[in-house]
Amino acid sequence: MNIAIVGLGLIGGSVAKSLKGLKNAHVFGIDTDQMTLEKAKADDVIEDGFTSANNILDKIDLTIICVYPKATTNFLSENIELFKQDSIVIDMAGVKEYVMDAAKASGVTKRVNFIGGHPMAGREVGGYDSSLETLFDGSGFLLVPDENASKESIETVIEILKFMGFSSIKNTTAKEHDETIAFTSQILHVIAVALSKNDYYYADKAFKGGSFRDYTRIALINESLWSETLMENRKYLLKRIDEFEDEMRIIKQALLDEDKPTLRNILKNDRLLNED
Amino acid sequence: MNIAIVGLGLIGGSVAKSLKGLKNAHVFGIDTDQMTLEKAKADDVIEDGFTSANNILDKIDLTIICVYPKATTNFLSENIELFKQDSIVIDMAGVKEYVMDAAKASGVTKRVNFIGGHPMAGREVGGYDSSLETLFDGSGFLLVPDENASKESIETVIEILKFMGFSSIKNTTAKEHDETIAFTSQILHVIAVALSKNDYYYADKAFKGGSFRDYTRIALINESLWSETLMENRKYLLKRIDEFEDEMRIIKQALLDEDKPTLRNILKNDRLLNED
Repeated sequence: MNIAIVGLGLIGGSVAKSLKGLKNAHVFGIDTDQMTLEKAKADDVIEDGFTSANNILDKIDLTIICVYPKATTNFLSENIELFKQDSIVIDMAGVKEYVMDAAKASGVTKRVNFIGGHPMAGREVGGYDSSLETLFDGSGFLLVPDENASKESIETVIEILKFMGFSSIKNTTAKEHDETIAFTSQILHVIAVALSKNDYYYADKAFKGGSFRDYTRIALINESLWSETLMENRKYLLKRIDEFEDEMRIIKQALLDEDKPTLRNILKNDRLLNED
Repeated sequence: MNIAIVGLGLIGGSVAKSLKGLKNAHVFGIDTDQMTLEKAKADDVIEDGFTSANNILDKIDLTIICVYPKATTNFLSENIELFKQDSIVIDMAGVKEYVMDAAKASGVTKRVNFIGGHPMAGREVGGYDSSLETLFDGSGFLLVPDENASKESIETVIEILKFMGFSSIKNTTAKEHDETIAFTSQILHVIAVALSKNDYYYADKAFKGGSFRDYTRIALINESLWSETLMENRKYLLKRIDEFEDEMRIIKQALLDEDKPTLRNILKNDRLLNED
């Protein structure tokens, strides 16, 4: 099986590295940066590298697109004639309605088995040099197959994801993905960024416990990638922010009312305790 | 030196355990629960245990009070005649204006060297059984000495805190402590609790990355202790919440305006990057 990874940044580089040793696989890289391709070749994680899809895409059985959302949809529409008929194409962008709708509109979903994806793993640093063979070990992966993708193509992808180290692989819809991820990932980063604007964020480290250090890590995000991803998902993200603000208001009111029994009830988290 | 630990819960138990091996020290426990005292004796972390201060406090050179804020101030005022003249008394409560003001009002600060304290360490589980010898290793400790506490008493306390494992010990004022801790600790837990009220908090684990797991830990707090601590510090906590809500509003507005350059600027965290 010929595999092409489009974009050898943090995610694409980690994909390439985690595919090392996959049986009967030939892994190629497509990246606009020749230096990155050279590095990946030197690291022995790709067999060969290409600065354009033209000379390689028609021989590829599985294309893994690891670039920003807009660049993902551009790659799909620009190379529609180049993709090998009935090959498998997956992407790794953090918003799925946007990508899946554009893929369908471009017609590519009729030519290939298109499966949207989103790895629930990352680092606070980006680029190929930050990529890790172990980045995905034990992580979740969200799978959003287009309705035209065959059962066999989905099974092939799941097998490869497992080889890469993902441990909880979940089939979901673009809508459910975007609604949920707005909460389980996006709003957490938004909150951490909002907090990082406060002068007390830079207080002496003696004032800070473990919980604080976790927030610092989350606030450090790639502003190019995240401004695009948050903006493309603003419909659901704004809903999650509204819901969060409602809950904050309830806590604030208990403090304003000096109502300790209510505050105590709010802090009592029976539901959370019953989570595994 | 005779040391008494008042309250052998998570913090008091960890204090007792971390004092193991301190030279020339005799460590005693004061706790209303006889069973806990028996356990601590069996663990060889206290020499003897007492359910009341009456038979032991007048022989104690260093009293470490490890109970809730109100119980702390009660212990100080109820035992004012029992404390050994010029002995050292420290407390471990998470609010300091409240405790320091009450200590001064009670007159105890004239009899003993009173030093307010706050260990920046904790766990999401409480009680003696959760206490750890290593709980404070590498943690911060905030020291708020009363104006009447001698230089020598402060030095003695710092030496013992270092023995217990604390690595950044900072002298601060009650006001600075309460203003800062409202941000570096309290608001983080308030936010985590507010988030935990959302149904998406209980989404399939495949949707959740490392950042999410950090929040789950922070949301799990002892509602009795925290409702008291947050309420006693509501003046500063409400300010920090207002500041945070202002920053959230700015991000929300950029999303509503579909203003990607502004969002990108907000997410770009140069100041954070310059932090060590």
